[in-house]
Amino acid sequence: MTAFAWTRTAGDGPARAGLLHTAHGDVPTPTFMPVGTAATVKAMTADAVRATGAGIVLGNTYHLMLRPGAERVAALGGLHRFMDWPGPILTDSGGFQIMSLGKLRKLDAEGVTFRSHLDGTEYRLTPERSIEIQYNLDSTITMVLDECTAFPATYEVAESSMALSMRWAARSRAAFQPRDGYALFGIVQGSIFPDLRIKSCAALAAIGFDGYAIGGLAVGEGQVEMFAMLDVTVPHLPGDRPRYLMGVGTPDDLLGGVMRGVDMFDCVMPTRAGRTGRAFTSRGILNMRNARHAVDNGPIDPACVCPACTKHGRAYLHHLFRCDEMLGPILLTWHNLSYYQALMRGMRVAILEGRLHAYADAVRAGWKDGKEALLF
Amino acid sequence: MTAFAWTRTAGDGPARAGLLHTAHGDVPTPTFMPVGTAATVKAMTADAVRATGAGIVLGNTYHLMLRPGAERVAALGGLHRFMDWPGPILTDSGGFQIMSLGKLRKLDAEGVTFRSHLDGTEYRLTPERSIEIQYNLDSTITMVLDECTAFPATYEVAESSMALSMRWAARSRAAFQPRDGYALFGIVQGSIFPDLRIKSCAALAAIGFDGYAIGGLAVGEGQVEMFAMLDVTVPHLPGDRPRYLMGVGTPDDLLGGVMRGVDMFDCVMPTRAGRTGRAFTSRGILNMRNARHAVDNGPIDPACVCPACTKHGRAYLHHLFRCDEMLGPILLTWHNLSYYQALMRGMRVAILEGRLHAYADAVRAGWKDGKEALLF
Repeated sequence: MTAFAWTRTAGDGPARAGLLHTAHGDVPTPTFMPVGTAATVKAMTADAVRATGAGIVLGNTYHLMLRPGAERVAALGGLHRFMDWPGPILTDSGGFQIMSLGKLRKLDAEGVTFRSHLDGTEYRLTPERSIEIQYNLDSTITMVLDECTAFPATYEVAESSMALSMRWAARSRAAFQPRDGYALFGIVQGSIFPDLRIKSCAALAAIGFDGYAIGGLAVGEGQVEMFAMLDVTVPHLPGDRPRYLMGVGTPDDLLGGVMRGVDMFDCVMPTRAGRTGRAFTSRGILNMRNARHAVDNGPIDPACVCPACTKHGRAYLHHLFRCDEMLGPILLTWHNLSYYQALMRGMRVAILEGRLHAYADAVRAGWKDGKEALLF
Repeated sequence: MTAFAWTRTAGDGPARAGLLHTAHGDVPTPTFMPVGTAATVKAMTADAVRATGAGIVLGNTYHLMLRPGAERVAALGGLHRFMDWPGPILTDSGGFQIMSLGKLRKLDAEGVTFRSHLDGTEYRLTPERSIEIQYNLDSTITMVLDECTAFPATYEVAESSMALSMRWAARSRAAFQPRDGYALFGIVQGSIFPDLRIKSCAALAAIGFDGYAIGGLAVGEGQVEMFAMLDVTVPHLPGDRPRYLMGVGTPDDLLGGVMRGVDMFDCVMPTRAGRTGRAFTSRGILNMRNARHAVDNGPIDPACVCPACTKHGRAYLHHLFRCDEMLGPILLTWHNLSYYQALMRGMRVAILEGRLHAYADAVRAGWKDGKEALLF
């Protein structure tokens, strides 16, 4: 029997290194979770995802409830078995994607009714149903259903949206069936209004969760505002629980997030960029379609140990993208996830050694010095 | 210094087991060569191709001369380094693809002028230029430029086409620069006319090649006619050289080819089928898009040790193809190539044990007995 817990190993200012204990194994934090939307991290086998160093992946409830369906996943033995990921899996609540559906969805106090973007079938999602779906998926970390407040929002809209999310958080908590090593995370909302963020923290702490996510950021407010909100929010979160900044972000966002006390991140950026030919490197971002890579036998990133960097030159990646060969997205997704994981490992080690700021400065200097760097 | 050679290990009727010795390593025969058209076996990393058991891969001169260009591949260190395949590589001559261009190409006695299907740029391919391109690619096994006679062809057309190919074979031989462990293969033509096939064998043997390919088959003549041509042709090929049946074929074609004395095969079938959701198995062909797989946790093929079969159920593959996830083609290409390699290994062992016919009967019975089998 493993109780779900996060234990602190070391700290460096607000930044923390720790260990997430779950029913599906332990994960060192800070950690980045690759996004496996439809029970697959796009273009990657599960073995390849493991090889990048990832310890936990994310699944999207919205996509999985449509295809193949949560009850079917349960009948097939759960998401871990289905996608060959015996390690921990975090699922979102479905709310974020549904809010993005625009005219296809209708929100009320009880939940949200929406039509599938695939075939128009009508679905109903409530806090209780979202929790049930995530239970059926056998999600290690379940997220409460919330309303991701659109940006920008007036104070009044942000306040009532946050209040709705807090009521749904309480209903999610009540619907959640505790199991050893499984967790339910609450989600802080409040747009860019400090007092709403602080109230949201208090409301969630009063309900009590196994971890706390910061939602409603990286939605257009910009990095300065996002970091300001972290500075406001993090001190009001329980210090002994993991903190998860949802949907973030660029490598520089990860540095700033960890330095402000965030433990967990997820983002489609490394996988999506990998499919379109953009490489994250220690020297900045490269576009592999650029003609200057055509005769370059050097690695994408000399600091990287992934197969794209150790077995091929940039010219090969350029060739693959020019020919629209699937191996281009495969190798570059592998590389980008490897880069993200190496960055998280680097930060963790730097925290343990009490030199996170120096590490972040060095990483940023590398991006800036890269002759071909596009800054993040 | 390794001389290119094929050594016979055992025989079972006309079938042979042997070992191909090359500058880039040895390969047991009979062998199936996955097609790596544009310096990549589609949807597969080189490590994944190796994991299926493949010992030699094929590259397409036509595609590589257009992108990235043979001289560029040479400047980048050759095809082996470019695509992370240090093992042997066979390249075709470019002729087959160019003949398929229809109105975009014009054949004359000296060679063929064609326009790229990509951007209309005009190119000229002669036997000498084809050999030069394959030299620049650093191909382990170079193929002579030939004209793949269209099917059906009148006797007169087939005769003059074959005669042209034999003249080009002599010019290819003259242009080829011998290197230790590298080889040049001639190609038998003659459509479905036994006397032309026999004349072609004699013409090639008089020139002298390191191996002999049988071309102009699997172009619409059907399996019965193809096997009849093998029965006619193989006895007229030198017994101490490898024999390669180009562009073939289905698993049943491979059984029939090996039983008639063929040592090497290549075909896009396992890779192409893998991308469209069709699985070759010991019980016949499955279409993974079929709804009956949606709740089936059983493996695609219980006899297979590939990741698709050992780590996932059919329901997962069905889900991936239904969602157009890249992992579907990745896993199913891996499976199909594993199936092809297992079939070749099975035949080789059966030859060594003198029971190839019994093995072939058992394999065919498996296809037939498969409850869901579509026969090959």
